[in-house]
Amino acid sequence: MRDELSDQAHHLVQYLEHGEREAFLDGFDELHGYDQAVFYVTLPSQLRHQIIEWLTPTELAAVFDEIEPEDVDLNDLLEEMSPRYAAQMLNQMYTDNSVDLLEEVEPRELAMYLALMPKTDADEIRRLLNYEDDTAGSLMGTEFVAINQNLTIGQAMTAVKRAAQEAEQITYIYVVDDEETLVGVISLRSLIVWPDEARVSDVMDTNLITVEPSDDQEDVARLMADYNFVSMPVVVENKLVGIITVDDIVDVIDEEAAEDYSRLAGVDVVTLEENPFKSATKRLPWLIGLIFLGMGTASVINTFDGLVQQASILAVFISLITGTAGNAGTQSLAVSVRRIALQETSSLLRMLLTEVLIGAMIGTTAGITIFLVVWVWKANLLLGVAVGLAMGVAILVANVAGSFIPLIMDKIGVDPAVASGPFISTLSDLTSVIIYFNIAGLFISHFVSA
Amino acid sequence: MRDELSDQAHHLVQYLEHGEREAFLDGFDELHGYDQAVFYVTLPSQLRHQIIEWLTPTELAAVFDEIEPEDVDLNDLLEEMSPRYAAQMLNQMYTDNSVDLLEEVEPRELAMYLALMPKTDADEIRRLLNYEDDTAGSLMGTEFVAINQNLTIGQAMTAVKRAAQEAEQITYIYVVDDEETLVGVISLRSLIVWPDEARVSDVMDTNLITVEPSDDQEDVARLMADYNFVSMPVVVENKLVGIITVDDIVDVIDEEAAEDYSRLAGVDVVTLEENPFKSATKRLPWLIGLIFLGMGTASVINTFDGLVQQASILAVFISLITGTAGNAGTQSLAVSVRRIALQETSSLLRMLLTEVLIGAMIGTTAGITIFLVVWVWKANLLLGVAVGLAMGVAILVANVAGSFIPLIMDKIGVDPAVASGPFISTLSDLTSVIIYFNIAGLFISHFVSA
Repeated sequence: MRDELSDQAHHLVQYLEHGEREAFLDGFDELHGYDQAVFYVTLPSQLRHQIIEWLTPTELAAVFDEIEPEDVDLNDLLEEMSPRYAAQMLNQMYTDNSVDLLEEVEPRELAMYLALMPKTDADEIRRLLNYEDDTAGSLMGTEFVAINQNLTIGQAMTAVKRAAQEAEQITYIYVVDDEETLVGVISLRSLIVWPDEARVSDVMDTNLITVEPSDDQEDVARLMADYNFVSMPVVVENKLVGIITVDDIVDVIDEEAAEDYSRLAGVDVVTLEENPFKSATKRLPWLIGLIFLGMGTASVINTFDGLVQQASILAVFISLITGTAGNAGTQSLAVSVRRIALQETSSLLRMLLTEVLIGAMIGTTAGITIFLVVWVWKANLLLGVAVGLAMGVAILVANVAGSFIPLIMDKIGVDPAVASGPFISTLSDLTSVIIYFNIAGLFISHFVSA
Repeated sequence: MRDELSDQAHHLVQYLEHGEREAFLDGFDELHGYDQAVFYVTLPSQLRHQIIEWLTPTELAAVFDEIEPEDVDLNDLLEEMSPRYAAQMLNQMYTDNSVDLLEEVEPRELAMYLALMPKTDADEIRRLLNYEDDTAGSLMGTEFVAINQNLTIGQAMTAVKRAAQEAEQITYIYVVDDEETLVGVISLRSLIVWPDEARVSDVMDTNLITVEPSDDQEDVARLMADYNFVSMPVVVENKLVGIITVDDIVDVIDEEAAEDYSRLAGVDVVTLEENPFKSATKRLPWLIGLIFLGMGTASVINTFDGLVQQASILAVFISLITGTAGNAGTQSLAVSVRRIALQETSSLLRMLLTEVLIGAMIGTTAGITIFLVVWVWKANLLLGVAVGLAMGVAILVANVAGSFIPLIMDKIGVDPAVASGPFISTLSDLTSVIIYFNIAGLFISHFVSA
C-alpha cells in the first residue's frame, strides 16, 4: 500500500472497530478499487465481517474485482460470507474476474455458489470455466457493448449510455448485424465526434482483428501489444462471445515473462512460495534429476581415471572448462528462448550457421585466453594448448546445444520447458569432460614428463 | 505480418510499382496503423520513396507512430525523405513516439530536424529528450486533454470533441483549476452519462494517483498494472506536464522482464543482435571475466594436488558437486531477483533464515541421494559420506549466496546486475571445490586404502 494511504487505512480501521458506519463508508468510497482490495485482504477476519455486513454484495463485488487470486486464500475470504451473499457478490463481478476467482474454489463450494445464482448466469460462468488455462477463453469477460449496425450515431450513443454502468470498458463499441455477426467496431471517441444522424455502418471500422476462445493467451497478448488495442473481441463463428481487456494482457505479459525466466533457472517463480518446505519441494525434482545426468559426467571422468593417475594436473582444469562451457551454453539458451518467445525463428539452417559462427568466435577467444593463462602459469606450452583447445571445442558444442535443443523442440511442437538453464549446463558438463579428456589423452605424454 | 494480410500487401506493392495512386491510397488506408508500419518498413527503398511522394507528412506520421525504433534503422528511413518533410512528419507524431525515434537519430540530423520545426514544438521535444532513459519523463507524451473544473459537463463535452482528433487518448480527461494545477480526473464514460448541466468539479474523481518525470518506469508500470489505468498523469509541482498511456507500459513490462532474464543468463536479450560477430562481442566480456574467477577455482584444486595424486577418484566427483551446487545457486538467484522485481523483500533477517532452511533441506536431500549412489557404485561407504556431505554443504552455501548477493546489493542500493546466473554458478564452483577437498581431506586415508 502506498505511504499516503496508511493514514487513511488507520482511520478506516478505527471506524470499523467503533462501528462508525457512515464515516467508514465515506472514507472507503474515496479509495481506488485496488486500494480497497489491498485494505480488505490485509484486515483481520472480524473486521472484514463488519465490512460484509455494511456493504451490499454489489458494492463488495467492485472490491473483489480488484483482488488478484494468487495473492490471497480465496476460500477463506468467501467462507466469511453467507453462501447466498458470496454467490450474489460473485455474480455481480465482471465475469472474467469472477471466473478467475472461482477457478481457485473447492469443487463443492463452486457447485454451491453456482446453484445459488440465476441459472443463465451460472451457465455462463460454467461455460467460461471450461476454457483451458492460458487461452483467450480463460481471459475474456462478457460485459461488452454491442450495437446494431443500422442504428444512427444518436441512437448508438443512447444505447452506450444505458450500457455504460455494466460494461467493463466502452472505449470500443462492437457492431453487429441482424444475425448478431460481428461486422465492425467503433470507438467512443468516433461516436462523440460524428453527427447524430450518421449511420453506424457508414462510419465503423470494418477491418477487424479478432481471436478465438482457444487461442493461446501469449499470442493474444502479442497482438494487443502490437496493435495497441485496449480491448480485443473474441468470436466463435464470427459471433462476438466476449472481450479481453488490456489490464488482463498486462498480467499475461508479466506471467509469460516469469515463465520464460523460470525455465532459464529451472525453478518456478510465477507463484512465489512463502513456506520454505514447499519451496524446497518445488526446487528438488530438477536438482535430483540433474544429479543423475551429472552422474553420467562422473562416470565419464571415471573411465579416464588412468589419465588422471598419470597426470593429476588434469583435475585442476575440469571445473574451469565445464563451468565456462556451461556459461556459454546458458547464454545461447537464453537468446534462443527469447527468439522463440518473440517468434523470430525463421530459418533453422540460417540460425544453425549463425550459432556455429558465434560459438566458434567465442570458443576461439576463450580458448586463446585460457591457453595463454595456463602456459604462463604452468610454464607448459602443450598443457596450455590441450586445455585451450578443449575449452574452445567445449564452448562451441555447448553453444550449439544451448540454442538448438530449445529451437528443435519448438519446431517439432514439444514444449521446450525441459531445456532449462541447469539442464543445458549439466548436459554441457558431460560433453565438456568427454572433449577435455579425449584431447588431453592426445597430449598425455607431455604432461607426464612435465 | 498476419497471413490474411500478405495478399493485401501483394496488391499494394503492385499499385506502387505501377504508379496507381488512388488504388494504393484506398487499400493502404484500410490497414491498421501497425500493419501499415510493418508494410512500410519491409518495402524496398524505391517503393518507400513513392509512398513519401503520395502521403502528406501528417499521414505518414500516423504510420511512424506505430514503428518500434529498435526494429529498424531509423536514420535510413528518415534520409529517404527531404529534411523538411521529415521534420514536419516528426512534429506531427505523438510526442512520446517522436522522442523515442529522435533518441536514435545522429546528433547532427537531430539538430537539423529541430531547426526545421516551429520553435515551441522543438523546445518541447528538446525538453522531453532531456529526461533520462527508463524514467516516467522518457515515456510521457503531451497530447492529453485537460479542462477547467468550472466547466459544465456540456461545455466539457464540447471541449473534448474539439480535442479528440489531437489527443493520444481521451478515456480519461484531466481537470485543472484556474492556476493549471491538476485537481481531478473524469472518465469519458462519466462525461457521457452525467447530465449536461452538472459541473465538472462536482462529479470528478479527486483521489489522484500521479507520478513525476524522474520516477522509475518500472514503478510506473507496476502502479498502472495494479490500478488498471489506461493512462497515468505526470506532474511537476502539481501541474500536469504529460501522460503515460498503457501501450507504453506494456512495452516497459516486456522490456524489464527481458532485462531480469538477461541478468540471469549473463547475456543481453533486450535487443537481439542479427550480426554473429556483434553477438559474440556482446557475450564475451562476461565469459572472459568469469574465466578469471574460474582460474581461482583451478588454483584451489591445484593446491589440493597432493590429495588427487593419492586418490584420483576425487577428480570423478568435482563436476557433479560444482554443477549441482551451481544449479541450486541459480535457482535461489532467480527467486531472489524475482522478489526484488516484485518488491517483496521485507525483512532481510527473515529471508536469510528462510533461505538457510531451504538450502539445508535441499542440501540434505541431494547429499543423501548422492551418498547412496556413490556408496552403491564404488562400494565405499566413507567415500559416499565424504561426497554426500560435501554436496550438501556446497548446496547450502550456493543457495545462501545465490539469494543473498542480489538482495544485499539491492538493499545497499547497488544495481544487482552483476549477480548474474553465470557469476553465481562460477562463484559457487569456487566455494564448492574448497568445501569438497577440505571434507575429502578428512577422509583421505580411507580412499587410499580402497
